[in-house]
Amino acid sequence: MSAGPCIEMSHGGGGRIMHGLIQSVFIRHFDSAPLRRGLDAALLSLPPGRPALTTDAHVISPLEFPGGDIGSLAVHGTVNDLAMVGARPLCLTAAFILEEGLPLATLEAIVASMAAAATAAGVEVVAGDTKVVERGHGDGIYIATTGLGVVPPGVDVGGIPLRAGQQVLLSGPIGDHGVAVLSRREGLDFETDLESDSAPLHDLVAAMTAVAPWLPALRDPTRGGLAATLNELAWAGQVGIRLDERAIAVRPDVAAACELLGLDPLHVANEGRLICVCEAADADPLLAAMRAHPLGRDAARIGEIIAGPPGQVDMQTRLGGSRVVDWLAGEQLPRIC
Amino acid sequence: MSAGPCIEMSHGGGGRIMHGLIQSVFIRHFDSAPLRRGLDAALLSLPPGRPALTTDAHVISPLEFPGGDIGSLAVHGTVNDLAMVGARPLCLTAAFILEEGLPLATLEAIVASMAAAATAAGVEVVAGDTKVVERGHGDGIYIATTGLGVVPPGVDVGGIPLRAGQQVLLSGPIGDHGVAVLSRREGLDFETDLESDSAPLHDLVAAMTAVAPWLPALRDPTRGGLAATLNELAWAGQVGIRLDERAIAVRPDVAAACELLGLDPLHVANEGRLICVCEAADADPLLAAMRAHPLGRDAARIGEIIAGPPGQVDMQTRLGGSRVVDWLAGEQLPRIC
Repeated sequence: MSAGPCIEMSHGGGGRIMHGLIQSVFIRHFDSAPLRRGLDAALLSLPPGRPALTTDAHVISPLEFPGGDIGSLAVHGTVNDLAMVGARPLCLTAAFILEEGLPLATLEAIVASMAAAATAAGVEVVAGDTKVVERGHGDGIYIATTGLGVVPPGVDVGGIPLRAGQQVLLSGPIGDHGVAVLSRREGLDFETDLESDSAPLHDLVAAMTAVAPWLPALRDPTRGGLAATLNELAWAGQVGIRLDERAIAVRPDVAAACELLGLDPLHVANEGRLICVCEAADADPLLAAMRAHPLGRDAARIGEIIAGPPGQVDMQTRLGGSRVVDWLAGEQLPRIC
Repeated sequence: MSAGPCIEMSHGGGGRIMHGLIQSVFIRHFDSAPLRRGLDAALLSLPPGRPALTTDAHVISPLEFPGGDIGSLAVHGTVNDLAMVGARPLCLTAAFILEEGLPLATLEAIVASMAAAATAAGVEVVAGDTKVVERGHGDGIYIATTGLGVVPPGVDVGGIPLRAGQQVLLSGPIGDHGVAVLSRREGLDFETDLESDSAPLHDLVAAMTAVAPWLPALRDPTRGGLAATLNELAWAGQVGIRLDERAIAVRPDVAAACELLGLDPLHVANEGRLICVCEAADADPLLAAMRAHPLGRDAARIGEIIAGPPGQVDMQTRLGGSRVVDWLAGEQLPRIC
């Protein structure tokens, strides 16, 4: 079976062939007015509110995994970073680093998936760039996305300091994304029906800020998992965090895979979960709003902010003991996002 | 001689080691308030005007070249894409794809160069991301930058259709960047004191829009060179363009290197030049404004828009003949930006 036409160095050379690729793949699928206009930069109109800007590089391997691919992941990852400051995502830029020899059909499938994810999230791809590197460099395709959004007037996420008594909420079970990706890694095949949780979270966040427009913190626990995200929060806020292990949901498939691979689910990446630190009085209304949303159905209160030790995350275990939840010291799961 | 500490997979793993790299290299050098705040997205305040957004991936080889490196190039390339719609650049995001084994000293030198170029151009790096790929993937370092700027009220670039009689201006000699990079390519060493023209053009553009706030077109002739840029303009505007070869400056070193390598300077990349299409009445005041600026000292009128054939670029040669200036058909100079 032939792989069909492939990316060649000339697709990044700035000549007629690159121009053709941009027209026939990128502009055709993304189909936004700024892209069609073809200026060096997209001209935008922003609604009222505070602009928010974020960027991500995506180097996931394999390019496709149960529940998504590098294209949908790139959109969700960037949309979610905007959502984590309370912003409504408006538009994306996408820079592609393609490896010579990448089948054009693979590129087109990924671009189509990215376009569909962007449409579903209500964002437009307004600017792009394409570079080609020689065979053996790169890894099929890397995608760097940048997102621009606007925090609606009245919403403030991250402006209130963390302090003892605030509650920590989690929107659903952890570890699905990392385990779904690993299940497709060469040499690591294991049986699971599990899909990545990759999803855009801005709509869930809008439902939450409608109930509690001032939130001390929102984070999506991606690389490094829940453990890294909470350690970062505790470190930045100079507070302690106490978790209740019984409240942190882990699907049986994820628990079994982690057991098999020697991983701690607290360190495994998620791409469609969020944690929220809220004032104690807001916890119940927020949980109700989250549970009423499809992406927050299994939301739970998983812990609280405590005075200290500053920067430390503790967990009361299922068995009634207590342990420190540390950052991942070294490497655990490379190329997961 | 030891290369010193190098990038390891754990530098991208989301744990304590990644956190340390971000603090000790990226936040230390870029040192902007949004980066220090450490939210998932930077919160911005924009001045009045129309927001403009652009993105670029940079995969240049070698990473350092006479007159710059991948870091300064990334800043200039993105600043210039904003300048080409008349925008004042405000801030950048930077996503790094690092190869396992990259010396930390190389990364730090590039980040320092990028920070210096950003400061010189008056822009802040407000958000970033770091991924690490296994040794043999990637190529030391790839950088994707996105720029956000604002087109000042009253400025309009690209809003006026191209039509016969408009003039084409060029800000300086062509081909310096491409030849400077090639001079450092393995196996291509040749003697030259030439430096890349890589430079931020927004200040030159501001001087130009002060004289002529409505411009039919501004472009920086990067990949594919002057030939690709003019063909793209002619194609998009459905007009013809007639060039005067005698007016297009090429430095003797560039001409000699192109002769040696079998290249046409019209196809060689530039990173600090611009072309401007203007109304005939604006040409002299614009040239005067350009020549008064250090980056436009050698500005010249190099041609004009003609009725057709639509999409075609012709050139009156030095010898009095005429030839078609086509896009580059295939690949000529990969990894030049």
